[in-house]
Amino acid sequence: MFRENRTKLAKSIKSTMDESALIVLVGGPSTTRFDSDNEPVFRQESYFWWLSGVKDADCALILDEDGRMTLLVPNLPEDYATIMGHIKSKEEWKELYGADDVDFTENLEQVLESKVVSNDKSTKILLMEGVNSDSGNTYDLAPEFKSNKLVEQQDKTTLFPILAECRVHKSKLELALLEHVAQISSFAHSYVMRNLKPGMMEYQAESLFMHYAYFNFGSRLVSYTSICGCGPNAAILHYGHAGEPNARLIGEEDNCLFDMGAEYQCYASDITCSFPANGKFSAKYLPIYNAVLQAQITVYEMLKPGVSWVDCHKAAEKTILTALAEMGIVSKGPDVSFDDLVELRLGGIFMPHGLGHFIGIDTHDVGGYLPGHQPRIQLPGLSKLRTARLLEENMVLTVEPGCYFIDHLLDGALNNPALSKYLNEQKLKPYRGYGGVRLEDVLAITKDGCVNFTVCPRTVEEVEGVMAGGKWPPMKDSTPELRRINLVRASPMLGPLGT
Amino acid sequence: MFRENRTKLAKSIKSTMDESALIVLVGGPSTTRFDSDNEPVFRQESYFWWLSGVKDADCALILDEDGRMTLLVPNLPEDYATIMGHIKSKEEWKELYGADDVDFTENLEQVLESKVVSNDKSTKILLMEGVNSDSGNTYDLAPEFKSNKLVEQQDKTTLFPILAECRVHKSKLELALLEHVAQISSFAHSYVMRNLKPGMMEYQAESLFMHYAYFNFGSRLVSYTSICGCGPNAAILHYGHAGEPNARLIGEEDNCLFDMGAEYQCYASDITCSFPANGKFSAKYLPIYNAVLQAQITVYEMLKPGVSWVDCHKAAEKTILTALAEMGIVSKGPDVSFDDLVELRLGGIFMPHGLGHFIGIDTHDVGGYLPGHQPRIQLPGLSKLRTARLLEENMVLTVEPGCYFIDHLLDGALNNPALSKYLNEQKLKPYRGYGGVRLEDVLAITKDGCVNFTVCPRTVEEVEGVMAGGKWPPMKDSTPELRRINLVRASPMLGPLGT
Repeated sequence: MFRENRTKLAKSIKSTMDESALIVLVGGPSTTRFDSDNEPVFRQESYFWWLSGVKDADCALILDEDGRMTLLVPNLPEDYATIMGHIKSKEEWKELYGADDVDFTENLEQVLESKVVSNDKSTKILLMEGVNSDSGNTYDLAPEFKSNKLVEQQDKTTLFPILAECRVHKSKLELALLEHVAQISSFAHSYVMRNLKPGMMEYQAESLFMHYAYFNFGSRLVSYTSICGCGPNAAILHYGHAGEPNARLIGEEDNCLFDMGAEYQCYASDITCSFPANGKFSAKYLPIYNAVLQAQITVYEMLKPGVSWVDCHKAAEKTILTALAEMGIVSKGPDVSFDDLVELRLGGIFMPHGLGHFIGIDTHDVGGYLPGHQPRIQLPGLSKLRTARLLEENMVLTVEPGCYFIDHLLDGALNNPALSKYLNEQKLKPYRGYGGVRLEDVLAITKDGCVNFTVCPRTVEEVEGVMAGGKWPPMKDSTPELRRINLVRASPMLGPLGT
Repeated sequence: MFRENRTKLAKSIKSTMDESALIVLVGGPSTTRFDSDNEPVFRQESYFWWLSGVKDADCALILDEDGRMTLLVPNLPEDYATIMGHIKSKEEWKELYGADDVDFTENLEQVLESKVVSNDKSTKILLMEGVNSDSGNTYDLAPEFKSNKLVEQQDKTTLFPILAECRVHKSKLELALLEHVAQISSFAHSYVMRNLKPGMMEYQAESLFMHYAYFNFGSRLVSYTSICGCGPNAAILHYGHAGEPNARLIGEEDNCLFDMGAEYQCYASDITCSFPANGKFSAKYLPIYNAVLQAQITVYEMLKPGVSWVDCHKAAEKTILTALAEMGIVSKGPDVSFDDLVELRLGGIFMPHGLGHFIGIDTHDVGGYLPGHQPRIQLPGLSKLRTARLLEENMVLTVEPGCYFIDHLLDGALNNPALSKYLNEQKLKPYRGYGGVRLEDVLAITKDGCVNFTVCPRTVEEVEGVMAGGKWPPMKDSTPELRRINLVRASPMLGPLGT
């Protein structure tokens, strides 16, 4: 898989550049927690992983225009063998990672110089430099050369957008991995649902999820910090961090919003389930839940190459606004259409985040805003979209519509005459502090549509069934509109310890 | 607890300095994984935690000479409330962390200048600067002032050793926390023991441990990356990292060495259990295991204020060498004593690490080598000791003797005429690749001895009993020499999901 990725990058570079080129990437360094000697489990930097599959820290690589890789590895002291384990020989490194050549990381400059000399003089050394459009962070692992010759020949503009674009379209093997990790995560969610009871703490759900995915499927890390909100916490989009550590007692009347994803071989999943803690949908919760589920289905009917992600986002908003109108929360006269309300950005009050995002080695995967594609739209709500691109085959995205009741957003809308006339304050009142619903699946764009890798219980009947201890996955697919391709062919769900 | 810590530090500073002083500490910043927006669960920097108990990132504090704390907190944008949760008011910050005053972190310099002005001119501003003796890392969170006045009055030498020394002696509340987290970890180890079967993967033990501690006791983090080695991996001291990720299948004849500790409220535990995977001690394993257990007991009989940690280490080595002599692996004539062999550093071949270390907020807690105490001893093996101090009341340490068969160390000793004459190569042979045994408890030094906070199965009978599904903890303490004060008074072990 990684060799295929290297070839893909080398080809892309070759088709862009006239000169010959060497690509240099530095992997993640080993780190400690502040000045202590506590070493968190190392997780490779994502670009480096995509090219190499190297799980070890302190490495680097040089890729030539034919995709041949020289792997640079740490020169470990002898007592490493006592403390950390067997020191691999160069042959073992070669074998393990399919490298064409192996040297020590500390020799990066020398190795590079000798390669530049053996090539002709116009060889460019391509280094990574750019900004991640999700975090706003600048990539900062590129080496700084001491040698003037190398500095003269370095090129920091070509590589970043090309490598990012390579990661946008997934290969067959990448698709298979993303499918697998979505399935692991779906079963882990189902396991949580089946075992959750009011009276438990939110973090117990996180613990069940992580244990299920690690114990049964070797998923040591999660793709992101688990969000296990119940009650009002379900309206905090990224709840669960150290400041709000999933530490509420789950009440009998609470609804849960659990957003968790396993990671496997550095490939991410990102799945959200929402459900009532007591296992029975109330009349108050039901219309909100179904609005969000319907938004998913609406989007799945649109997804195919050529479709704009912005249009999908607006379609989800429209579906939710329509449902809120049926509940009387949104009110409009016959002269105003739901499309008008969407353009007024009313939907962003209830769904203040983007419809979804690319997913791959990163949960919020790269390539959302690259040169040559639709730039970020500077309008409320739409500015939060992690991409505004037209869809293409083999893109993998999450679809995660949501509907939340967030006081400061509702207050803002009620104080804004342009929006307040379309809201019914009285009907809204009972939903204040009520939390929210989000449903999130992982889908791949196919030649003419999409497939859903997620196999979670989604319909009201499915959720109530699993929460009552019913079998999962089901024998028959009651809702093919959800396009859960693995639903009936998936193996039965395991419990930890085989139960 | 944190207020008490602040008072303790303020008093120590006051008794050292003639001038008045303000202490400035910066807490850990929020971080992402490389340039992505993946945010690992934030864990506060340990010095900052000891003084403040603040779980949030991007804070700072100013402490005056009476221990009054001004807490500086991030100035969060409004949409934080949508994404991350309720934005606390200054009153709420004060209340939550017992701060005397609250301001924004971005105002640190201004707040400090106004305090310096209101004090007299000789006020020193104490900043942290120093090297962690376990990691060799330099503390690097101290602020760099732009204001010349502040730069003139800063003092970077006084604070570090005093604050580190304050953390060496634990308060009553700290002792209670360390006792609690040792108990959580002990039960989690016992749970793993009871559920472990040959045919499982090493990482499944890690998953069971973490789930038990988190699900039952809210311990979200472990104090360090879990070491779950079986077979030959048991001889790799810090196995389990990303390069060697606990991924071996546990064989019928394998012995396990599991070194894992839960963290609770940022207080660490660090406990190791060793046992045969199939639950029955073999004739080959038994003498090694009992040698290490006997080394623990030997040390526990020595531990009390005034005793040198180096002497304890040597006593453990001597006990192990004596047992190896009984097995015929070590051979010596009557004219050579075991103490002679210890001084020859033969013990370091079988136990190539220190006897243990301080433990507190960090697993390898600070204060091992501070000015005014015994410096590091530059001899093989002894140089690995994390402290060489004389013991004092309310120090908390791990005691973790071990005996391993590590090829490159054994080969080195066999090729060294000074050592090889005391080794029987033939008797050693069957133990090549056999792994090793380590037993590790957490103990506190009392006025006249020690108490052991760990409540793991330790004797052969106890281990075999729990692995056969027997009750734990026991009704009676068969081995009071292990000083497990909570053994019979501990609550019965829970299973996750109450089983």
